[in-house]
Formats: sequence, C-alpha cells, structure tokens
Amino acid sequence: MRPMAVGSFLSSGNTPRCRVGILGFGTVGSAIAARLGGNHGVDGLDLTHIFDRRAFAKRDALCNQPSALHSNIVWTTRFEDVLASDVDVVVEAIGGIEPAAEWIRAALLAGKSVVTANKQVIALHGTALLQLAERQGRQLRFEAAVGGAMPIVRAVSDGLAGDRLTRIVAILNGTSNAILSRMEATGCTLAEGLAEARHRGWAEADASADVDGIDARAKLAILCGVGFKLRVDPARIDTRSIAQLSPSEFQDVRKRGGTIRQLAFAEYDRSLAALTAWVAPVVVPRSSIFARTCGPQNAALITGEHAGEIGVFGAGAGGAATAVAAIGDLLAIARDRSAIVPAPAWSAPAIVKGLERGVRIVDLDQKSQEEQAGGTLAEAV
Amino acid sequence: MRPMAVGSFLSSGNTPRCRVGILGFGTVGSAIAARLGGNHGVDGLDLTHIFDRRAFAKRDALCNQPSALHSNIVWTTRFEDVLASDVDVVVEAIGGIEPAAEWIRAALLAGKSVVTANKQVIALHGTALLQLAERQGRQLRFEAAVGGAMPIVRAVSDGLAGDRLTRIVAILNGTSNAILSRMEATGCTLAEGLAEARHRGWAEADASADVDGIDARAKLAILCGVGFKLRVDPARIDTRSIAQLSPSEFQDVRKRGGTIRQLAFAEYDRSLAALTAWVAPVVVPRSSIFARTCGPQNAALITGEHAGEIGVFGAGAGGAATAVAAIGDLLAIARDRSAIVPAPAWSAPAIVKGLERGVRIVDLDQKSQEEQAGGTLAEAV
Repeated sequence: MRPMAVGSFLSSGNTPRCRVGILGFGTVGSAIAARLGGNHGVDGLDLTHIFDRRAFAKRDALCNQPSALHSNIVWTTRFEDVLASDVDVVVEAIGGIEPAAEWIRAALLAGKSVVTANKQVIALHGTALLQLAERQGRQLRFEAAVGGAMPIVRAVSDGLAGDRLTRIVAILNGTSNAILSRMEATGCTLAEGLAEARHRGWAEADASADVDGIDARAKLAILCGVGFKLRVDPARIDTRSIAQLSPSEFQDVRKRGGTIRQLAFAEYDRSLAALTAWVAPVVVPRSSIFARTCGPQNAALITGEHAGEIGVFGAGAGGAATAVAAIGDLLAIARDRSAIVPAPAWSAPAIVKGLERGVRIVDLDQKSQEEQAGGTLAEAV
Repeated sequence: MRPMAVGSFLSSGNTPRCRVGILGFGTVGSAIAARLGGNHGVDGLDLTHIFDRRAFAKRDALCNQPSALHSNIVWTTRFEDVLASDVDVVVEAIGGIEPAAEWIRAALLAGKSVVTANKQVIALHGTALLQLAERQGRQLRFEAAVGGAMPIVRAVSDGLAGDRLTRIVAILNGTSNAILSRMEATGCTLAEGLAEARHRGWAEADASADVDGIDARAKLAILCGVGFKLRVDPARIDTRSIAQLSPSEFQDVRKRGGTIRQLAFAEYDRSLAALTAWVAPVVVPRSSIFARTCGPQNAALITGEHAGEIGVFGAGAGGAATAVAAIGDLLAIARDRSAIVPAPAWSAPAIVKGLERGVRIVDLDQKSQEEQAGGTLAEAV
C-alpha cells in the first residue's frame, strides 16, 4: 500500500478517508501524530485536530524540526473544539483516569469512535464505555492499552476466541522489565536501573506505577476481561512492588539458574468461578521466555484448553510501538465504520485469590529439552 | 461465557445463532465438529450440516463413541445439500485445490460466508475469492490456513496493520519441525523422524508437501499477501526440501552451536518492489527462537519499520489447534454477519529473489546477552 499524498480525500479503494483528532501531544500522542501527519501519512487516515493543554507552544516547537506535521492540522487547547469538529475518530492519549474517561464518554456521545492507549480507564470503566459505544453504534478500541505493539488484545479477544482460555502469564510493563534486566546484566541497584531506563526514554519522571505494579495490574485486569470474560477491579489484584529488590537477590537467584522478572499472572477456574491473579517480582528460570525478555520488551504466554500455549512478544513501551497499535485500531475502524461491535458481557468472579508463596508454574515456556527434563519453576521472591 | 444448551436459537445476548455446515470430516473437520456439536458446544454457533464423501460410514462409526455429536446434524454425501441449505457459514475442510476452490466459490455465490483451513486455495486463489466475498457482502476467513492456533493472520493483517512490515521469518510447517527436532534430539534419520511424527498424529500418510516445503511456501505466500500486500504465486518461491538431511549434518552444526530448521523467509524492499522469499532447511543458532521451537510447533518473527520485531509461537499442527483458529473465524463472522470486509489490493512484486548461500539473518531473536555479543547467523545447509 503506497502512502497517499496529504490532502487526498479518497483512498485508492475509493473508501472515504477517516478524519482523526488526537487528545494529548505527549509521548504517545506525538508519535501517532508523526505517523499520520508527517510526510508519508497513513493511507485512509487524515489527522485534522490535535488537542493539548499546551498545544500552541508544542506546535511552535515543532515548526523548526524536519519532522514537522502538515499545516492543515487544527491545534487547540480546548477539548470542546475537537468534540464539535467533524472528526470521525478521537484518539485519547492524555492518560490518567479523569478527565480521560469523561472525554471518551463525551466523544462517543457525540457520535465519534474512540481509540485509546489508556489502560487505567479501560480497566476501571471498560465495560460501561464499551456498552455506550455499542448503543451509539460506534467503536471503542484499546489494543494500545496493553503490550505496546504486541497485538495481545486482538490475539486474546479474536484470534483465541475459539479456545477456552485458562491462564495468562505475562510481562506487561516495559519500564520495570528494563530495570530488572539491567540489574541482572550489570549488578546495579534498582535506582541505577531506573535512571538508565529514564535516560533511554523508557521511564517517565514518576515511575512508581511501573515499579509498584499498578500499571501491569490494570493491563492484567483488561486481559481478564477479553480473555476470561471477567470484570475484575484492578484494586482486587494482589500487587507487589519491585522497589525493594537488591543486587544481592539477583546474585542469589543467578546461582540457582534463574533471574527475576515482574510477572502478571491470571488463572481462571471456571468450575469454581475462581480467579487467581497477581502482579509480583518472581524468580523465573534462565531458559524461560520471561528471562529472555530484556529491556522494554513485553511477552505473554496464553494457555487454552484446546490449543495449549500460545506465546507473543515484542516492543512493550515507547511512543513508536504504542503508535503501531493505535494506528492498527484506527485502520480497523476506518475499514468498516458501521461495524457492530457488541459490548462484552463480563461477569464478576466468585473468588479472587492472590499470590501464594513458592507458587509453581509449570510449562512456563515452549518445552526445550532441558525443561522437559527438569520442569520449570517460578517462585515469589 | 457459559456454553448454551444445544437447540437454543438465541444466545444470551439475543444475537441470532449462526448456522454452520462443515465440508470434510477428516482431521480438521472432525475436530471442529467435536467442538461445535459435542456436549458443550460453542456459544452462538449451531452445527447443522456435515458433508463428507463417506458421511454415513463416519457418522455410524461415531455412534458408539462417548464424543458423539448431537443428533440434529444433517449428514450428507452431496455438497449440493449444504449449498441449498440454510447454513450461514460453510467451513471448508476438504483440503486440496479442486473441488475446494470451486465449492468455496459456489458457497459465496449462494450467499454464505466461508471459513477455510486451505492454504493452497488461499495462496493460489485468495485475491479472486476475497473479491467475490466482498461483492457478495459475505466474508471469507482463513486464520486456520497458516500457523494452526497461532493467530498470525490476524496479527499481521490487523494487529500490525499500523506498521510497515519489512520481514517475516517463520517456522510454518509443524510436521517438518517435528521431524527435524526429533533428528536433533535423538540422532535418528529423517525416515525415522517422519515415522515418529506419523505415530504421534503430526504427519499424514503422504508427507511430501511438508518435507519438500510445498506446504510452508503456500503459507508464506499468504503472509506476503496480508503482510506486504503482495500477490505471490507460491511456485515462484524458492523452495528446498529437507528430504536429504542426514544425522551427520545435525552433528556438524551442533558442534558449531546450531541446529537445523525448515524456515520460511520473506523480506520486502518497497523502494525496489523486490521480494526475497524462500523456504529451506537452514542452520539457526541454538539460542534462537527457531531452535527452541520443537515438535509440531510454529513460530514467527515479524519485523516492522516502527515496532521492530514481534514474535508469536504456538501449536502449529493437529486438529485441535486448527479448530481453535477456525472457530475464532466463525465467531468473528457470527458477531457481525453484515460486516464489510474490503478485498485487499495486492500487487505483484517487480522482482522475486530466492535464497542466497550463506545468507546472514541478524536479529533473528529477542536479543539475549550472548546474541548481543555475537549476533546471529542462519545459513543454508
């Protein structure tokens, strides 16, 4: 597919182009804008509006850069301007819970579809917002909320819809994974690992949501929704911080052939309606896919009754990776703007359990010969 | 989601149930039938018709088994009965090119959507059939044609649609992978590895399409379509058999830290419209994801300009895995039967190149520390 010249309002397939407004010009919003509004553009999508509280300062700062956006974009400091405009889809990239949730609601009520990278809003308000989207005959898509460019929301909700999923084990936070794999590789402290992650652009100024597992548990709650059809309040997920990990703990587990990763774990026993879910630093075998996941990568193993384990991994953090997921969602909406996306009927689990000490996770990986002999073990640090 | 009682014609969401007819009651067809027509069923899908040339013998053979299908299913030895019936979706699981392609065409013309596991038909006739489906306002889905339960068609065509893909490297044939990993593990001959794969149900009586790469190249042609928007005749893909590999070659490469896998490789240079594509046994490093892929598993690394490498792996062969993919497609159709799925505009590459001796494939894997130091190398055997 060749990029269209900016300003063309018909794609090569004679499909009307889809008009896009972006809320928030931070890491994610600016990466999406650069793809849609730069020299090449994305076939079928027109970036027409950008909202940011500091829109004009950010626009002016861009002017002298070679990556400048095209000049037809309306920049605004008022959300209402985007709401009242003729954009077909609003991309919510402001983060946080409010006003993001309220603005997503307002956009759907105004007849616009919404693409969001906001894991907290989807984890807390996903069911209600998806129901609103269905009532409005619009779409709400959130591939970018979980796993960066790794297409795990689609893999779980569509690709593996033909299975009955029983377990999801994953590295869902690229920042903490970059910190932990740095500690493993260099013997540095957590503070030093965090400083390095910030230096590389993999951590925000305040990384507490990453380090403490708050980010990963929101993503895990979303995966419990799309994978198990369960509505889980993220606050009910047993969540343990990596903040207290020391270099000596890495040395200890290394001697035993392992390393430490922040894992998100969810297992659903349908017969008891019992969910076990936690986010915690755990010891994983060096040969497992999780130990091999280094830097700001994400990885997930999804187990179904019929197909066994399916794995997926890839870039889990950063604006470019998140933009790939958001643009995939935009293209899905543009392809069929009248698609009916029924709101999911997620039920609450009867029981929610947390991490038990010394938890044994067998089959954590594709079975290499070593593992077939020895099995695999993940345990709480 | 709780399974519905068989015979309910409304799901819990008041969506009309989708009536399904299956063509072919072999490994794949019977696995799908067991899921749809067994004790539990799949919410929203009603299996109403089964066509097979030996339908009555197969039906009678099932009668005494505990896994018996429900008794409302119409069994027939005439395709025309399915065509004239009120099924909404036809699952094509007869394999081969004809009459499969002709029957898919007839089903679409009769106003039915089609789900197929048939890689040869999609690789050869996919563009024309997808255009026909669009004209008919129906859907043609083929997740089951590539990668078994591994949702690679969706990952490439939807999840990574927001990237510009440049390369796909994959193990796409579970049978040959089971043979090669058996040769690696036990030092056996190819004939012995094939016998073992047959014994385990991973190989058909005639495995020549697997061993010679004909199966993998059809799947690679499909991935070139959904990933690069290229129409590639599978016969133009440089394809080399694993049939001549001997135990001594495995011993040689083992000494150098590698092993041998049947890889499918495609790389697209958009500036030259040049596609490099081949299927061949190549040496891969022991630490790579491909060496770690053992038994009838599949694995793929998909590289994009923006998100870097995304990996996916899982069960690549067998009825249960293929049924997961086909049922995912059935559920997608059932969810929105009036969805518009525009036919893709795939163009022909200007240049098609094959495998060059000693090809160097860098970044074949998530970068472990060893690999960051040494790089990775795949070379023609």
